Parts: sequence; C-alpha cells; structure tokens
Amino acid sequence: MIKVAINGYGTIGKRVADAVAAQPDMEIIGVSKTSPSAEAFVAQSRGYPLYIADIGRKPDFEKAGIRVAGSVEEMLTRADVVVDATPGGVGAKNKPLYEKLGVRVIYQGGEKHLLAGFSFNSSCNYAKAIGRQFVRVVSCNTTGLCRIIHLVDTAYGVKKVRATMIRRASDPGEIKRGPVDAIVLDPVTVPSHHGPDVQSVLPTIPITTAALIVPTTFMHMHVVMIETEKEADREEIIQLIESHPRLGLVRPATGITSTAQLKEYMQDLGRSRADLWENGIFQDSVSVVDGHEVCLYQAIHQEADVVVENVDAIRAMIGEVTDAETSIAITNKALGFTAI
Amino acid sequence: MIKVAINGYGTIGKRVADAVAAQPDMEIIGVSKTSPSAEAFVAQSRGYPLYIADIGRKPDFEKAGIRVAGSVEEMLTRADVVVDATPGGVGAKNKPLYEKLGVRVIYQGGEKHLLAGFSFNSSCNYAKAIGRQFVRVVSCNTTGLCRIIHLVDTAYGVKKVRATMIRRASDPGEIKRGPVDAIVLDPVTVPSHHGPDVQSVLPTIPITTAALIVPTTFMHMHVVMIETEKEADREEIIQLIESHPRLGLVRPATGITSTAQLKEYMQDLGRSRADLWENGIFQDSVSVVDGHEVCLYQAIHQEADVVVENVDAIRAMIGEVTDAETSIAITNKALGFTAI
Amino acid sequence: MIKVAINGYGTIGKRVADAVAAQPDMEIIGVSKTSPSAEAFVAQSRGYPLYIADIGRKPDFEKAGIRVAGSVEEMLTRADVVVDATPGGVGAKNKPLYEKLGVRVIYQGGEKHLLAGFSFNSSCNYAKAIGRQFVRVVSCNTTGLCRIIHLVDTAYGVKKVRATMIRRASDPGEIKRGPVDAIVLDPVTVPSHHGPDVQSVLPTIPITTAALIVPTTFMHMHVVMIETEKEADREEIIQLIESHPRLGLVRPATGITSTAQLKEYMQDLGRSRADLWENGIFQDSVSVVDGHEVCLYQAIHQEADVVVENVDAIRAMIGEVTDAETSIAITNKALGFTAI
Amino acid sequence: MIKVAINGYGTIGKRVADAVAAQPDMEIIGVSKTSPSAEAFVAQSRGYPLYIADIGRKPDFEKAGIRVAGSVEEMLTRADVVVDATPGGVGAKNKPLYEKLGVRVIYQGGEKHLLAGFSFNSSCNYAKAIGRQFVRVVSCNTTGLCRIIHLVDTAYGVKKVRATMIRRASDPGEIKRGPVDAIVLDPVTVPSHHGPDVQSVLPTIPITTAALIVPTTFMHMHVVMIETEKEADREEIIQLIESHPRLGLVRPATGITSTAQLKEYMQDLGRSRADLWENGIFQDSVSVVDGHEVCLYQAIHQEADVVVENVDAIRAMIGEVTDAETSIAITNKALGFTAI
Repeated sequence: MIKVAINGYGTIGKRVADAVAAQPDMEIIGVSKTSPSAEAFVAQSRGYPLYIADIGRKPDFEKAGIRVAGSVEEMLTRADVVVDATPGGVGAKNKPLYEKLGVRVIYQGGEKHLLAGFSFNSSCNYAKAIGRQFVRVVSCNTTGLCRIIHLVDTAYGVKKVRATMIRRASDPGEIKRGPVDAIVLDPVTVPSHHGPDVQSVLPTIPITTAALIVPTTFMHMHVVMIETEKEADREEIIQLIESHPRLGLVRPATGITSTAQLKEYMQDLGRSRADLWENGIFQDSVSVVDGHEVCLYQAIHQEADVVVENVDAIRAMIGEVTDAETSIAITNKALGFTAI
Repeated sequence: MIKVAINGYGTIGKRVADAVAAQPDMEIIGVSKTSPSAEAFVAQSRGYPLYIADIGRKPDFEKAGIRVAGSVEEMLTRADVVVDATPGGVGAKNKPLYEKLGVRVIYQGGEKHLLAGFSFNSSCNYAKAIGRQFVRVVSCNTTGLCRIIHLVDTAYGVKKVRATMIRRASDPGEIKRGPVDAIVLDPVTVPSHHGPDVQSVLPTIPITTAALIVPTTFMHMHVVMIETEKEADREEIIQLIESHPRLGLVRPATGITSTAQLKEYMQDLGRSRADLWENGIFQDSVSVVDGHEVCLYQAIHQEADVVVENVDAIRAMIGEVTDAETSIAITNKALGFTAI
Repeated sequence: MIKVAINGYGTIGKRVADAVAAQPDMEIIGVSKTSPSAEAFVAQSRGYPLYIADIGRKPDFEKAGIRVAGSVEEMLTRADVVVDATPGGVGAKNKPLYEKLGVRVIYQGGEKHLLAGFSFNSSCNYAKAIGRQFVRVVSCNTTGLCRIIHLVDTAYGVKKVRATMIRRASDPGEIKRGPVDAIVLDPVTVPSHHGPDVQSVLPTIPITTAALIVPTTFMHMHVVMIETEKEADREEIIQLIESHPRLGLVRPATGITSTAQLKEYMQDLGRSRADLWENGIFQDSVSVVDGHEVCLYQAIHQEADVVVENVDAIRAMIGEVTDAETSIAITNKALGFTAI
Repeated sequence: MIKVAINGYGTIGKRVADAVAAQPDMEIIGVSKTSPSAEAFVAQSRGYPLYIADIGRKPDFEKAGIRVAGSVEEMLTRADVVVDATPGGVGAKNKPLYEKLGVRVIYQGGEKHLLAGFSFNSSCNYAKAIGRQFVRVVSCNTTGLCRIIHLVDTAYGVKKVRATMIRRASDPGEIKRGPVDAIVLDPVTVPSHHGPDVQSVLPTIPITTAALIVPTTFMHMHVVMIETEKEADREEIIQLIESHPRLGLVRPATGITSTAQLKEYMQDLGRSRADLWENGIFQDSVSVVDGHEVCLYQAIHQEADVVVENVDAIRAMIGEVTDAETSIAITNKALGFTAI
C-alpha cells in the first residue's frame, strides 16, 4: 500500500483524499488543516488522521471537538507520497521542507512548472513521471486541453489550436470572490498564458488561448478549434472520444446544454460531490469545418478533473505500474466511472 | 411493503423516489416522465420502472435508449399511494383521474390547500392524515416555518410571528429562470401569502410574512422573529432544536455563515444530492430579544425539506404507523441522518 | 426634417427615439406601447406623443395618468420612416400593414434577413440602403463583428475569422430571464448562426463563430481572431481603430478589464443611459500572432451599438445624405461622442 | 461660495462632487485620487482639480495624460469643508491631519460614530450639526431607515421597529467582491449592528435589525415593520411619504417590482448615474397590520442616498442656512429631483 499524505485538505485535497482512499493500492495516512472549519469536521467523519501546521493551535481544534494527530512535519515523515494541495504559491514555500525530508511530492497547477521541473498529464506523459521526486499536475484547464489536443494530434496531427476558456468566478463553497455581474478579461492580454502551460506537457503544439471569467461557480467551458494536418471525420472523432477513458460525451438525448444541467446530472448519477472527472464534451457541438478544423465545446469541472490525475501521478512516481493505461483503468474502476 | 408511484420524476419526485426506496416498509413501483431527458436516464440507472403520460411517445424514449414500462394510468392502478410531484397546477388537473381510480394521492405545496382539503407537516399534524385519500405536503418554506414555530409554540406559546423569506430564484439545474442581478418583490404586497399557508397547518398562529427573490440557486433563507407568551431562554431553545429530529444546528466551529458553505458541507458529508432535509438553523443567530422574542436565521433547502415529509405522509395515510415520532425515526434512520 | 415613428418603445426603441430627437435633420412624431408601464411614463416625460396598438385600451393608460395620442396605424401614416423595434418576430407580422401604408421601415436584427431583403451596417454598406423601403439593421453582435472585420479586411485582407461571443443573459431591467449560475451553450452546435449573419452584410468573409450565454446583464464580450492575407502590424491596427468613428479603444491607463468597469466609465462620462455606441476594444488585448492573425477582445453593448446604426439607416433610406462618412459624423456629433 | 474638497474620489466621492458643483452656494476646489484610473480621467473631464496623496507619484499621472494640481494637504488647506469619502477606516487615520489644519470634515458611515461624535441625517437632526467641525453622515442603510422611522414616529409614535436589510454584494463597477451564488449572513448574529447605528441618530427608537448579503449590484432592499403607538392609516401614510422631500413612491402603474426595474426607470428619467437619492418605497407594499403595525418595502440605492445628505451636512456645518427644510429644498432643486 502506498502511504499518501494530503497537505492542504481543501477543495482539491479533500477530493484527492477520497479518491486515494478508494484505490486498492493506496491509503491515506493523514491530511492537514491550518484552522478548525467545516472541512476539519469532514476529515474527522471520514476517519482521516488530521495534522496541523501550527501545533500550538491544537487547543483550538480540541475545543471545537476535533482530534489532532500531530504536526504536518510528522505527517510528511510517514508518507511515501505527499499531495501538496495548498493554495497557489504556498507549495513553493514548502519545498525546502520537502527537500529536507526527501519525500516525493505532487504539486498542483497553481505552482510554476519550474518548481517541479516536470508537468504531468496521465494521458500524455505518464511514463516520464516514473521515479521522479517532484511532479506537477497541471491545472484543471490545462488538463482538459491536453486530453483533447493529444487525442486529435494522435489521430490527425495538429496544425494549430485556438481555445477560449470561459472560467467560473469562484468555487461553489466560496463567498468572497466575485464578480457578481461582469465578464472579466483575465488576463486582458491575448493570447493568455494557458497556451504555454499546455506546451509544458505537449511542447510541440502551436496554440493560442484566451481566457475570461464569468459569474458562475461550477465548471469552466472551453471553445476548442483545432486545425488538423490530415482530414478529420466527425463520426470517427466521436468514437475516439467515446473510447477515451478520461473524455465523456454529453449525449443529445439528455437535453443538456449547460454547465448547470451537467452538474445536476452528475449529482443524480450519484457521483461523489457531483464530480465530473472527465472532459464533458457536448456531442452536438463536435464538428469539422472545411475538413481540417475540429470544433467542440467541453465542460471542465474545476474541482474534479485533476483529482484522477493526482492519483495516477502517485502511482507513476512510485513506479510499480509502468504504463498509463493500467493506472488509468485502476483509478477509474475504483471511483466507479460510468458513462455520462 | 407499501407500493409507491411517483407521478412527475423531477426535482422533488426524484428525491422522494430515492427516499422511499430507502425505507424498510416501502418500494417504488414506478415513476413517470413526459419526454426523454437526463432524468429519464437517471430513473433507468436507478432501476425504477418508467411510465409515460402519452404512450404514443414510446418510440421517442426507445430511440434514446430508454425502456418504457407502460402508461401513467397503468402505473397508478398498481400503487397504494401516488406522490404527485408534477409542476404546480398540474396536480389539480390530475385529480379526476385519481378519483376515478380511487388511489391515495399526496400533493405538493404548489397545489392549493382546498384541492386536498388537508395540509400536512409530520411534526405538527401527522395523526390527522391517517386514513385520508388526499393529503397536501406544504411547500418547502411553509414546512420550514411550521417546524420551528410549532417548537417555540409548544415551549413558550406564540404571541406573534414575523418572518421574511429570501428565496432562491431558480433550482440549480434550471437555466431559463432569473433574475440575473435583481432583488424581486414576490409578491410586491406585504404581508405575503405564506402566513395563511402556515395557518393551513397551524390555524391559530398570528403571523406576518414577507417574501423576496434573489439570484441564487440553493436554499432559501428565513429571518424569523417570534414573540412568545412566556419568557424564553436562549440555551433552552438551542437544546430543543438539537433534540428535534427535523431541525439542525449549524455550529459556529464550522465557520459556516452562508447557503453556499452549508451546501458544500452537506456535499462533503456525503449526503445524497447534498440534501439538507432539516431546517438549517444558525446557532450563532439564535437570540432572545427583551426576554420575549426569539430571533434566528434558518436555511431551508427548497429541493429537500419536503422529501422526508412526503415519506411520513405516505406512512400516515396507510395508517399502520400511528404516531409521528415513530415514522420520523424510521424515515430519518433509513436516510442516514447525521448531525450537521 | 425627417419624421420618424418608433413602433415599440422598449430597450432599443427608447434609445433610438432619443438619438433621433438629438439629430438636426430628424424629429420624433410618435412612439408606441401596448400597455401602461414605466416606459410609457418615460415617453410622456420626454414629450413624445404616445400611440397604442389597441385603442380600446386607452382608458387603462388614461387611468394611469398617461395621455394617448392615437392608434399605431395613425402614427404610421404620419411618418417618413418607421423604426420597428418590436420584439423579435413581431416585425414580420407587422409587414402587411407597412406594405399597405407604403411607409419606409427599419427592422432590427431579431427579424430575418429575407424580411427586409437587405441587411445594413453603416460602416460597411451605407450607400446600398439609399432609396430602399425596407432595411434591416443587423443585431448588436453582428454589428460589432462587421465593424472590426471590415476594418481589418480593408487594411490587410481577411483570410479567415474565428469569433467567440460570450453573451449577457438578460438586459439590466429584465427580471424573468436567467440563468442564475450557468454557462449555457446557445446554440449547442458549433459553429453558431452568427457567421452567416455577418455574411448578410459582408458576403465574402470566411467566418466561424461560437456563442454562449453567461449570467450578466451588461455587454457581450467577443474574442476575435482574424487571419489576414497581408502581414499585420499591431501599432497600425491600434491607429486604425482610434481613427474609426464607431470603434473605441479602452486604454490601459483606465485600469478597465471588464464589462462592469467599462459601463461604470460610460456612466461617469455622462453618456445617456451609460451607452457605449462603439465597439469597446481593449487596447492591451490587440495583438498579432505569427504576423498574420489579429487577436482582440471587444465589448459590445447590446442595448446601444445598433442605435446609431438605426439613425444612419434612416438617413440613408431618405437619401439626402449619400455617403456614410457624412451621416456617421452628423450622428456622432449630435450624440456628443467623446473618446472613451 | 462654500469651498468644498473631496478627499477620495470614488463611488461616493464622485457623486458628492457633482452634487456639490450643482449647488448655487458651493464649489468644488479639488478632489483626490491615489493612483491613475478611469475615475481620474473622469475628474479631469469634469474640470475638477486633481490632488494626489503621494506627490511622488505625479509622473505616473502625467504619463497617463492626467494633470495634477498638487498634494492632498495643499487641497485641504484651501477648503472650507472636506468631504472624506475614503474607504472605511481610512478616515480615522486622516483625523490627526484634519485636526492639525483645523478644517471642517464630513465622514461617511464606514467610520465610527465616536470619530466625529455626531451622526447626521438631514431629515432628523440638521440643526444639531450647525457649527460642528466633525460630522458623520450615517451609512446608506441607516439613512434610509432613519428617514422612514422618523416620519412614522412623528405621525404615530414608534413602539418598536423590526427591519431586515437584504444588501447588494458589490457596487456595479466592482469585479472582485462576491458572492456569486450564495445568501450570506453578515453578521451571522441577530440582531445586527444596524439597530444601534439608527439609534446614533434617533436615540429613543426601540429597533431590531437583521442583515444579509445577496449577489446583486444595485440597491439594498429593506423589509420594514414598525409597530406604532397610535392607530395608523394606510392612505395617510402614503400621503406623508408623497410629501416628504427624501421619500419616493414607486407607483403600481409603472409595473416596477424589483431593484433592476427601478434602476432602469431612474436611468430612463435621465438622472445622473441613474441615482435614486430618495428611499424608493413600493406603494403596493405599504400596509397596516392590525391597525398598529406599518409594513413596507423600500429600495435604498447604496451609491446615492447619502449624497444629498453630504450636501446638506456641508450647509449645516457652515451654518448660514439654519433649517433643514430650506437646505433640503435647495439641494433637491439643484439636482433636479422629479417625482419617481
């Protein structure tokens, strides 16, 4: 059993914890919080040992009825792999400690590529993560882009990618971030930085991206246009998507045309936290313009799609499973992936 | 086993179906839809036989890969109790058919009191539903008000209730209803009709209500001020809430001060569809002004709080369980109620 | 003085009325409403004679304190040009009456191209509207696209346009339309119909468009990527935009990166109804990728950009001013255009 | 002419500046900003001399094309009255400088009562501000409450006030503050601090308030319930509201039932920045329960209602106009108040 610690039990961390706990070859040996909160109660109800950054705050937790297992440093020494799911930028500050302890660490996309020196997507470069001490799982948006671009590249060769990402303003449980009634250019420059981030995984893909923020809480929406080298065929693309373990087709018969309906559907299907781990590609949107440009919409669940990538990354770093297909199949089966 | 049919497998119907299926003394014999949709796929994945209103549309369903068990009328004839969860006003149109078939029917709060002749809340008037053919489960807002008012009335006597309901604009899965950026007076007159609706369950309570709509999707929020006959005590009220099976306390240590955080917490606790079946009473808000006025905020999950009431109403109409406490305990246990 | 009637005094109609009234060569001879409302009071406060569709409802208006000048048909007979600003689809129903009366009519973009047989944009095809009885001013989105595409085409030649339109869900004063918290694909197919609509004005432009709806109320945002025949230069494009009478540059020193801030700025500058009649092109977003692809963001105020087009269309149809530049200059000066 | 300086040219400051500039007995001698921005361009377009806090940043402004008149301290020395419209809490830090210069200062409601020692509302206590060096204009919510409570108290005597304030989450031009989809209890305790703030103006009024935040940008909505000593009459109350210079009636014939429609109406009426300086009391909501409780809804425009109070406060402090009625009449006339 691979011993996994979650440093930062928040939006991503709590999901990775549950996904890890569901795997046949992994176990959670601890999760961390900085202060008492609803999530600390959740960790306790799940039975995850809770470690805290500042052990001096232990009485605050105990007063609230939350048991503390020890300090974060203690947790790290007991782990085979640490998933650093702290807020963006904090991971960089943690690195000296990780290096001192010599522990394997997975960073999230909020940290820079150079911090880990390797950016990961299980469908694109699983094998290259084997044996590494530091791996960065790219952001939710980059993960979603890499999956579909790699698929089209493998099938037809990619000449040029253009993608616009309409991003949710805040996660569902946040109450301070806005905007309330605005479309915000973030960044105001075109192209955005997301293109280079895709290239940290797929270095040879020519890509131009734009990114905006809108007042919603659940799932980004991507408008993807991919010019191909070879002539592309719509029905073939749909079949390729259907058979890909991390791409899902939103079927026309569901009547779903929005992020809200797709979330409702995931919730109705009984998925943990209504999570959509796959790209949600709208079947009706898939089209080929002039024979050489694939166009489609895909919903990317910002809280979920990287969760399965973290699980695969853990397995790759340990190195007992050496191919992506096997790891992805184990991960998906443990989570109970069903066709959407 | 009580055979239950759900006429109208939508926001409320799909939840009641799952809650009924979880009970030890009930089973779902069918659910109905009018056209193929995501929810029809959900019914199928749950194994509920699907009946359709217009049997002539059977090919549309089959083409989409959805099996049809028969017509709605066939479903109704096989049921001991029908839960009518059709959109507001449709239930009235269905009544002649129900009368013809002589089947027991539960209406929702979107229908008028007079249609059923009896308005139900399990904490207030369970026993009066025994043996009835028609019962109306009052709306989510009225349900939430009745629970807390009845509690305070029993403890201290109610002199006067004033309540303001800040209502969500649309359910999470809807995409057509707004507003986007407005506070809407609905109705523009004060007091609103909610007061009389509370009196359909608790006839002697003097109550003035106001109701507004705001652009959110999850949970109404009530500002409740109850003048009492006897002097009230804050700690005692908190204890009464804690020991009530359909009232939940949102504890200060969770840090939760909003509907969004409360939903996230329900989701993290693994509740089906993140449902809050209880009133979510914020412990820090409970106060007693001048010794004789109880003030508090309560979150009312519009999709969920009536679900458990429907289950109790089924049991009451059949009449084998003759007291509210027993039914409520069975219902809660089957759903895995946990302290929030 | 050109006598102008506004049939449909709503979001667009009330703005066109004020813009027409400000012109030195035009006057408003009447506006129409179907029922008493805030806008009827506004028409009265502006001194516009109010005509009503159903003269039998005259007492309803008078009871509310609103004077009625007569029936819509009376209004139409007194006009040189009618601006039909009724809701989409109603204009088609009005056509037989317009033909009977032989009056010149301007339709809005909610009507189909074939209804008028000619689609208008003053920067692209002013002269072709001279002497026509029916002219259609294209929609706000198509107007915004035509302006910038025509500019780039004139300067460098257009090889291919790709545009994504992130559309506001409802106008600021609407309270029924949503969504509240969703990104809606409208349509779910890619490409959307907006491309062909651009071609109703600019027939030879190859264009692929995508369109989504987000929960905001003010201004659409366009992500525009235009491949050019000749090599393009960023500084030159910015200068071309600056000197175009219907394109505005949002300067970096303002700190504006969103629709909300841009609206606030228009309001602070004292513009009528905070209207942005120009394309609001974000200067920092203007870029040239690989020398041959112009990329930029532009905000399109859905309530305003077609207003000035309607004014120019009136002038073109009457035919005394035969060139676009002169008409645009008169229109802009009368409205007090200032650099944004 | 009273020389007025605006320290903090933001949401409130820019409105007070325009309102002051419109008065026959006042002039703006300067406004201040800390960094170049859209609002700095607006000040320049209005012709207001711009002063800056850190004179070392002058080159930043000049590079952006904005002229700088001098430092904030220079501005303060030239003013008879300074309106401190800096962000909440900054005013307190400015006090030592104001005391050193001996200048009269008006603080906003974001500062504490004790900072000024006197809290102002022109309809309630104008005369008590005469000759003071420091005056605090209470917040938008408190201003709106004081106006209506004082009216009812004068007419019938107030026994008890209960008010719930549904507050907008952010101003229209903000893009960082949320929430996006939540009702937030702020504070989570009931009653809120707004009651005591009303008592800073009306010390003897018994009042309980509750306050929530919802995701809208324009206008708070108050649910006001006032128990009266004497029997109250609905028609009389409506007449009293109509004849009050700072209360406006939203008439049923307008069809307005929301903040969004009310804003649209203000904008259509040509009011500067669509400002509603009065309480917007919905006529249909005004009711009397059991003869002794006045109930109503009122919209409070958070950006606007205190603007006219600041103007009156300036006049009161200087002391040449000694009664509220005269000052209010001058202020209203200069702004072109019209019946709404």
